[in-house]
This record gives sequence, C-alpha cells and structure tokens, in this order.
Amino acid sequence: MSSKPVRIGLLGRGTVGAAFERLLGERAAAVEAATGRRAEIAGVLTRSEGDFGVILERSELVVELLGGTDPARGYILDALRAGRPVVTANKQLLAQHGDELFAVARQVGVQLRFEAAVAGVIPIVRTIQESFGVTEIARVFGIVNGTTNFILSEMANTGAAYGEVLARAQALGFAEADPAEDVGGADAAAKMAILARLAFHTPITLSEVAYEGIEAIQPDDLAYAKELGLSLKLLGVAERRDGGISVRVFPCFLYGGHPLAPVEGPFNAVMVEAPAITEVTMSGPGAGGVQTASAVLGDVVSVLAGDAPVPEPLERLPIVTDVASSFYLHLEVADRPGVLAQIAKVLGDNGISVKSVVQRGFGEDARLVMVVHECLESRFAAAVEEIAELGDLRSPPRSIRVIEEELV
Amino acid sequence: MSSKPVRIGLLGRGTVGAAFERLLGERAAAVEAATGRRAEIAGVLTRSEGDFGVILERSELVVELLGGTDPARGYILDALRAGRPVVTANKQLLAQHGDELFAVARQVGVQLRFEAAVAGVIPIVRTIQESFGVTEIARVFGIVNGTTNFILSEMANTGAAYGEVLARAQALGFAEADPAEDVGGADAAAKMAILARLAFHTPITLSEVAYEGIEAIQPDDLAYAKELGLSLKLLGVAERRDGGISVRVFPCFLYGGHPLAPVEGPFNAVMVEAPAITEVTMSGPGAGGVQTASAVLGDVVSVLAGDAPVPEPLERLPIVTDVASSFYLHLEVADRPGVLAQIAKVLGDNGISVKSVVQRGFGEDARLVMVVHECLESRFAAAVEEIAELGDLRSPPRSIRVIEEELV
Repeated sequence: MSSKPVRIGLLGRGTVGAAFERLLGERAAAVEAATGRRAEIAGVLTRSEGDFGVILERSELVVELLGGTDPARGYILDALRAGRPVVTANKQLLAQHGDELFAVARQVGVQLRFEAAVAGVIPIVRTIQESFGVTEIARVFGIVNGTTNFILSEMANTGAAYGEVLARAQALGFAEADPAEDVGGADAAAKMAILARLAFHTPITLSEVAYEGIEAIQPDDLAYAKELGLSLKLLGVAERRDGGISVRVFPCFLYGGHPLAPVEGPFNAVMVEAPAITEVTMSGPGAGGVQTASAVLGDVVSVLAGDAPVPEPLERLPIVTDVASSFYLHLEVADRPGVLAQIAKVLGDNGISVKSVVQRGFGEDARLVMVVHECLESRFAAAVEEIAELGDLRSPPRSIRVIEEELV
Repeated sequence: MSSKPVRIGLLGRGTVGAAFERLLGERAAAVEAATGRRAEIAGVLTRSEGDFGVILERSELVVELLGGTDPARGYILDALRAGRPVVTANKQLLAQHGDELFAVARQVGVQLRFEAAVAGVIPIVRTIQESFGVTEIARVFGIVNGTTNFILSEMANTGAAYGEVLARAQALGFAEADPAEDVGGADAAAKMAILARLAFHTPITLSEVAYEGIEAIQPDDLAYAKELGLSLKLLGVAERRDGGISVRVFPCFLYGGHPLAPVEGPFNAVMVEAPAITEVTMSGPGAGGVQTASAVLGDVVSVLAGDAPVPEPLERLPIVTDVASSFYLHLEVADRPGVLAQIAKVLGDNGISVKSVVQRGFGEDARLVMVVHECLESRFAAAVEEIAELGDLRSPPRSIRVIEEELV
C-alpha cells in the first residue's frame, strides 16, 4: 500500500467542495483500504484561485463541483479528453449536455460518475446503472427536490400560505435566496432527465421534460386534500407510455397508503418499477453539504477501485452483548390494591422508568401493559425476574423490545 | 460486439435458478449492450444432471443457486481457485463460511458477488460495499425476512393467532413447508451477519449473531400495541456500540412515525445510518424467484462489465405528451340548483368519471372539490375549459394530479 498517491483536481470549493475536501482527509485510511492507494488534493480551482490547466496536468482524476453549465462543461470535456475520469454533482450540465459529455467519455474510454447529481446520498444512479442496468425498467418516479418537499410538508402541517413557508424555508437554509429553480420545478426536471436517460437508455435532455412547480398551490387545496386522505408532493415521473417515454414534473396528490406519502420535510425518495423487480423504493436526505460530498466520495472510490472490492476485514470488533433498549412489558396480575405499586417499585429500584401504561380489569385479574424507556437489557431482565417472583402474576411476563425514537 | 460469448456455469435450477436462466435469455440484448458480450449457459448442475468438473472447465463465471452449505461451499471454493468469478445467493454459506470464501477470492483476485443473498432485489449489498464503502457506518438495520413480516402484518390486521396465520402464509407461498429458519430468526440472522461484515469491515459469523424469532408473539400483544401506536416487526440490527458491535435479530415495536413502520406484507426494508449520510432507507420485495434472479443477473453483469459503464443510448424513444392521469379539481361556484348537474354533465360528456366529492356552502357560493378517475390530460383540460365557461364560477378552477393506485 505504498504506491503513489492518487492526485485529485478539485473544481469548486463551495459548501459541497469544502465538505468533500474535509471528508477525503477524514476517511483517508478507509479510502486507502478500499482502493489500495492514498488520495490527495492536487489543486483547487475557485473563482479567485487556481489555474485549470495546471491542476489538470497534476491530477489523475477531476472532481467538478462548480455547478452551472459554463465553464464546468469546458473543464469536464477537457479533462475527459485528457483521459482523466471525472466525478461531478452537476445536474443542470448533465441534463442539458449529457449527450456530448457521455459521448466523449465513451470515445476516450474513461469513467464519468455523477451519483451526487440526483437525490443526494440516495444511491439511485448506481442502482439504475449497475444493479438494474439490464432490467427493463417501466417507471422511475419520486420526490427529487428537498426544498419543495419541505415547503409542501410545512404548508400541510401548519396551514400557512406558500409565501410564508418559503420565507421560513429560506431562514432555515432549506431554500436558496433565489428559489426559482427549485420551486419552479427546473431542478427536479434536470434530475428526471438524467434518471430517464439511465433507466431507458435513450438520449433525453432537459428541454424534453415538461415541468410545473408549486408556486400556485393554495393552503385550502391541502386542507381539502387532507379530508380526502391525500398528501401533496412535487413528483418527477419518467415512464414508458404508448411505445415512447414520458418525463414530467408536477405537483401531485398521493393516497395515504402510497410508499411516497410518508416522505416529509427536506427528504428525497425514488421508486423504480419493473416487472422483474416489482418495485424498489429508496429514501434519504436530498441535499446537505456533507451528504452530497459523501456521494461524491463514493464515486471517487468507485473510479479508483475499478473492479468490485472483495470485502477485507479492517479490524476485529468485539461483540457487545448487553445492549440498552426500550421495552414493552405485558403482565397478567391479581387485581388487588398494591400490585401496581409493587411492580412500579421493582422497576424503579432497577432504574427503569415507565413511558406509558394501559391497565384493564378482567374479573379478579388485570392486564397491565406498559412501555418502559431505554435501559440495559440485563437490568430489564433482572427486573422482570423480580416481578415474576412477586406471586401476583397469573401468567409469565411477556416482553418485546421497542424502538423509542420517533423519526420524522 | 462479435466477441466470444461469456459461458456461465449454473449450479442449481430451483425456483431462482430457473428464473435466472429465463431472464438471461430474455435480457440477452441488454446484457450484450452493457458488457459488450453475449452470455450463455455453459451447463447446469442439479441433483440429477451435470458434472461439476465438466461445467467448471467450460465456464468463465459460476452462478451458485443450490443453497445450503454443502456441497455449495466446495464448489464455490473450487471455482474461485480456478480463477472463476462467482455470483451466489447463498446467505447461510456466506454467514457461516464468509471468512474462508472472501479470503480465497482476495488471494486469487477474482470477484465474489452476492447481492441476492440479502433483501432480494433491494441493492443493499452494493450500496454498503460501493456507495458507502468508505463511510463510517453507525448502524444497519431493518426487516430482512419477508415471511415473518407477512405473518406479523396479518396477525396485526386480522387479530388471528400465530399458528393460523402461519398456515395461511404457507398456503399463499409466503412461508415454506418447514418454516423454522424463517420464523425462528436464523434466516434474518444470516443476512445481518453478512451486512455487519460489509458495514463494519470486520469478520463476523452467524454464530456471533444473537437471534429470536416470532413464534411466541400473542395476538393480544399486537392489540395492545395498536392502542399504544406501535407496530411489530422482526428487526435485524447491526450497530456500533461501546467500541464494539452488536448484531441481533428480535421482534420489536416501532412507533408510527418510524420509516420502517409502514413496511407491510412480504416486503423487506433496510436502513443505513452514518453521520455523513444521515440515513438512507431502501425497501422492496424480499424474495420471489424472478426478483432474486434479477439481483443475480445484476451481479453477473457487474462482473462482466468490470468498470462502470458510461451510459450508451440503445434507442431514441419518442416523448409522449398526452398522458392519462387522475385529477383533483377545486371549483368555487354559485350555490344554486343545477350547477353541480351542469358540471357533472360536462365531465360525463368528456368521458370523465368522478371518484369522490366534497361540497361545502359558503353564503351564496359553494366550494366543490372532487377527485376524478384516470383520463387523458387533454380530455381533462378540455372539460375544465368548458366548466370555466359555464359562468357560475367565482374563481378560476384549480386542478392537481392524483396518483390513484393505493399500494400496500
């Protein structure tokens, strides 16, 4: 593992670029373990520093995080033509100039990877290109813009108007100062153009995607929708239709049972449907500097690793056996004064606190069902053993673990 | 593209093996486009036909779908040592003898792929190994056994007892005649051993996974849980804890807001948590012959493709612009007799049928909110235009698309 380090040319050091640079340093040992080589930044190009020609000359691989079509397009074409693999997060560039970029990458025979361009850290590009690369995909659809999903969730949950919620999203950093590309649907349209190209192996550009945004949504649409059991999402849909394909972005209601219905806040979720796979749903944070940088780093490692890695143990971690957990506890007890107090005392003595209780009488017996907060399993087991010995139980106690956290 | 075909040795032709053979034929052109080579079956080994030595000799790649540890273990070791990449769906073998198999693959320098061994068609192996290969994963957990998830969903939804629901699952093909490995937790434990090895880069075998099954679950636990807002899943959890790792399988309650709570029936879902990615959730069918075969085929293509493919257009599909959809329609109309009838007539004349309506009076006006069944967008737009011309509208009609299907 003492071979020459891989030198990476980094174009752009905004939020994602800076996060990538930091992550590459933090995960240096893991990168070396996965690829057999250390990776280091050969040079950084920003508006105020660096020379593209010099950086390209010094680099073995180029990471483009400038955004926008120009000058990113020229840099990527130059890098590919010089035989450098390129990793990019640039969705607008790929959606508008994908034909040109992919054609050059193919001609030269170098990799062009772009997981971070669509749905943040959700590995949808790799999944469609590799796992489902030879699957006849019928439909790819989902929530691919976190800003609009946050706004729609907030409108539905608070009843507030679009403009008010947009301002809140901007204050929280979930919407940009100029939100037009997100709320108007162009951002989602670019992502759907990329996914459609991959899923259907057909050239498609942003100009062929029909899109609408969420600016016209009224609070009372959301209120009525709730009565009808519907929730509103900005949906991107790419599907085979009538021997062709349809690629569109539009606000759309979903019934409660739909897998995308529970996706709230700044999250993304994408579904892939095909006869041979039925359907697969993937969800996760749609953006964020470190999350996007993680997707970029995953691509960088894939370029460096070439073939699929055969997992190699890095260390032998000890197995932990006594783990903390929250528990459900079901007791059938004699229905007489003092029983509950005795049980509560045993739990308290063992440092276990009760989160919720349901108690019901049945003739001379009562059922006592409770959820207790997280505690070490050994403590809980000891308490249950003590309770079992109280003599008031009509049947052995039953317990089942509970995941206590309530995620959004 | 006229190079020699890739010859595949197929070990096992049960449900998955037969589905793989069929799928390979159906997707031959796509495989050739993705890898540059045709693929064909060089020979099949079953209990009654074929000779392993002859098949190995003739094959460039071996697909092992026999299941069980022996003789599969010996065959895979022989294939790897002979320099043949291996694709397998054999979770018990990997969970029990992973150290040996991976060590030989590393020594020889050939690929050993096994996406189909865990969570069916959900690309969790590739995601952890490649997308998150250098991410410091904190926790991998989820529902990795479809049989038990089906049984628990049915028990919760019908109130029936475990034994009764198990019999129903067997009749529907969701549980095997001998269900012990599924309902006792050993199947999920094997999958979690494999995921833990990948996520934490540490050797771990089935014997180190603590597991419980669902045989002891009582209907009234599920009934009480419903009152407490909980749903029950058989959960596999592999996580960093106290400087080591904990890998366990156990029945566990989840609160309604948890991403895994809505996963019902024979589905699988896996979550990956890490500081750099927050959390990613992936769900889909956990088994099924063609779904598992799809995962196997994805691995075969990855072995053959080597480097990541640069997407190449296979055809230029036409863009379809007039698409059928279901719609929500919001109208503010004068509240007088005949208005609803007029609107209904316009819809009917355009071949559009109404699914549900909410009507509310507000002084002299009324709001009429409805969902209509799927129709061509052009027909819907024409109907809305006619309605707008009726003269009884107080504001322009508003419409939003609705996804009508209610998935499980």
